[in-house]
Amino acid sequence: MTAASNRTVSPGGPTVIAVDAMGGDSGVAAIIGGMEKSAGKNTDIRFIVHGDSAAVAPLLEKKPALARLVEVRDTDKVVSMDEKPSRALRSGKGSSMWNAIESVKSGEASVAVSCGNTGALMAISMLQLRKIPGVVRPAIAVLWPSRNPSGKNIMLDMGADIKADAQDLLQYAVMGASYARNALGLEKPRIGLLNIGTEEHKGRPELQEAAKMITDVAGIGDFEYIGFVEGSDLPSDRVDVIVTDGFTGNVALKASEGTAKLVGDFLKEAFTHTPLAKLAALFAMSSLKRLKKRVDPRRVNGGVFLGLNGTVIKSHGSADAIGVSAAIKLAYTLAHNGFSEKLAARVASGIEASKNTGTGTGTPESDEA
Amino acid sequence: MTAASNRTVSPGGPTVIAVDAMGGDSGVAAIIGGMEKSAGKNTDIRFIVHGDSAAVAPLLEKKPALARLVEVRDTDKVVSMDEKPSRALRSGKGSSMWNAIESVKSGEASVAVSCGNTGALMAISMLQLRKIPGVVRPAIAVLWPSRNPSGKNIMLDMGADIKADAQDLLQYAVMGASYARNALGLEKPRIGLLNIGTEEHKGRPELQEAAKMITDVAGIGDFEYIGFVEGSDLPSDRVDVIVTDGFTGNVALKASEGTAKLVGDFLKEAFTHTPLAKLAALFAMSSLKRLKKRVDPRRVNGGVFLGLNGTVIKSHGSADAIGVSAAIKLAYTLAHNGFSEKLAARVASGIEASKNTGTGTGTPESDEA
Repeated sequence: MTAASNRTVSPGGPTVIAVDAMGGDSGVAAIIGGMEKSAGKNTDIRFIVHGDSAAVAPLLEKKPALARLVEVRDTDKVVSMDEKPSRALRSGKGSSMWNAIESVKSGEASVAVSCGNTGALMAISMLQLRKIPGVVRPAIAVLWPSRNPSGKNIMLDMGADIKADAQDLLQYAVMGASYARNALGLEKPRIGLLNIGTEEHKGRPELQEAAKMITDVAGIGDFEYIGFVEGSDLPSDRVDVIVTDGFTGNVALKASEGTAKLVGDFLKEAFTHTPLAKLAALFAMSSLKRLKKRVDPRRVNGGVFLGLNGTVIKSHGSADAIGVSAAIKLAYTLAHNGFSEKLAARVASGIEASKNTGTGTGTPESDEA
Repeated sequence: MTAASNRTVSPGGPTVIAVDAMGGDSGVAAIIGGMEKSAGKNTDIRFIVHGDSAAVAPLLEKKPALARLVEVRDTDKVVSMDEKPSRALRSGKGSSMWNAIESVKSGEASVAVSCGNTGALMAISMLQLRKIPGVVRPAIAVLWPSRNPSGKNIMLDMGADIKADAQDLLQYAVMGASYARNALGLEKPRIGLLNIGTEEHKGRPELQEAAKMITDVAGIGDFEYIGFVEGSDLPSDRVDVIVTDGFTGNVALKASEGTAKLVGDFLKEAFTHTPLAKLAALFAMSSLKRLKKRVDPRRVNGGVFLGLNGTVIKSHGSADAIGVSAAIKLAYTLAHNGFSEKLAARVASGIEASKNTGTGTGTPESDEA
């Protein structure tokens, strides 16, 4: 069932995605289902699937069209969802997660996708792929529903690291811009720095410093720096990429998700409250479906690790086939655009630029900043 | 027209609220309208209204029932919405905002309410009312729609200060618990510390330290410490009070507000998208109204300044009469419960407790923590 027709990442050749089939809470079926959806839309996609072939093979047997695009690499070793990153580093070798990242390292695949635990995935990715020279803290960038034409904004860091100094925030801006160009097709992304007010004097000292550095590098980074943005701008159409430290980003994203879910649940309750409300829901069905589609978190599934020599995408642990498909589509788009190479080049020229303008040293600031 | 029937804050006597009539973007009419709504529900309420009597008097003339409860103190001096706190401190004396807080300081009123600018209001409040002994950083506590029976959760700090060390977070917990008891009527509020995960080892060092200190003081503070909570818990029913630093709190709140507004706007669009959708909206009207009421930000209007010798409530700058009425209702509830005195007593016993358990010195930690 399984030899991939081409294993190398060659221009014009097929686009190969490495998939960790064992991570996640929804089981192998959700992952295979997501692969099938993506394969239907992108004819030149191929997969290297890492996982327990006893679980994977029977599912693929039922999907012969997909099976032709898939090579299965057997392993029964799994990094569990609650495994600490340090332990995953010590004992994760040979796991489906480890091997998926190894496929990117070896050049067999362009991008790896895993629904496994974020901490372990980042730790193993950093160990195997190494940071791009000049990047101190890699970041996780996520998509969020917005009023922009694409329907999406990008926010980073989402918790790869819990702190970030001015130099880190500068690199998040450069990397976020490159990601926006390659994932959303924006020529000149608009970058905003998350703060508690839009006035120049507001916020923490490192934000003031980062604002200056980002302004200086905007030209060479091919983005527009629009200044400070606030939490309310997460879904705004005045910005494309929101830059913040991993602690703040994680809280902002989860708070927004929690609120969206609250409103959704209240909406459901409002339309089931009385028999009349249930009748109204029938009339309102297509409107409610339209709303649901626009704010469906599965549609924006996929956190991209930025700052490594290779691209890894973290799919939500509880993603179903639709969610996994969104993450794989993102992987395909980035691979197709040669994102890893473009990102490395952007980071290098960003460092060069900040050296020349004297806004940064190109070497890491003290951890205390 | 206007002598208040009783100006002292006496047990069993009327409850006097000082109102800054000139702050805010919606004008004096919104504020007088809000007062009228509150007065209709609380018969023992009285107001001292600070502002331009040329603007206030004509509005009160049309509301004789309200006018009987109001004393107007004339001033045409206003702290503008964009005035920097430092400038407001230097030149704000005699303004409607300043005088409203002075009414609390003098004991004439129990609580002051202003729709004016937050920074200036906090600066003037700190100068006039002074911090409760032992409190290093006062906090702003806000309400947020939740799945709890009250329909509300409390979050603090919301941006009074942009940082907080472990000792500050401990005091936010103690103050937040007291606020929850007096505003929401919860006997033993459940306190959570905002972090990027619920596992004990997660997050910044000051959060680990604060977690230990809060655990030790929970008994004497008469609250339950439930551990770390995440952004998604903002509207959760497993917690009543969410404690965090002012930077994170501000971002989380605004991100949630922005998301709620996005979903609301998408919902509106979904129900106006086609003629059929508009028809469906008619059938769904009562369900949609029910939803709107549950997530109406006006219903949770009112940020309470905690940690000062006296209570000041910041109403949203763009609050209409319904919003102002919610803030005044909150002011009334707190005044009626003798909140200022209870809060001071709680802070004192919290400090005593943390001395005895050895988890804190009772004196401020270094600013660097």
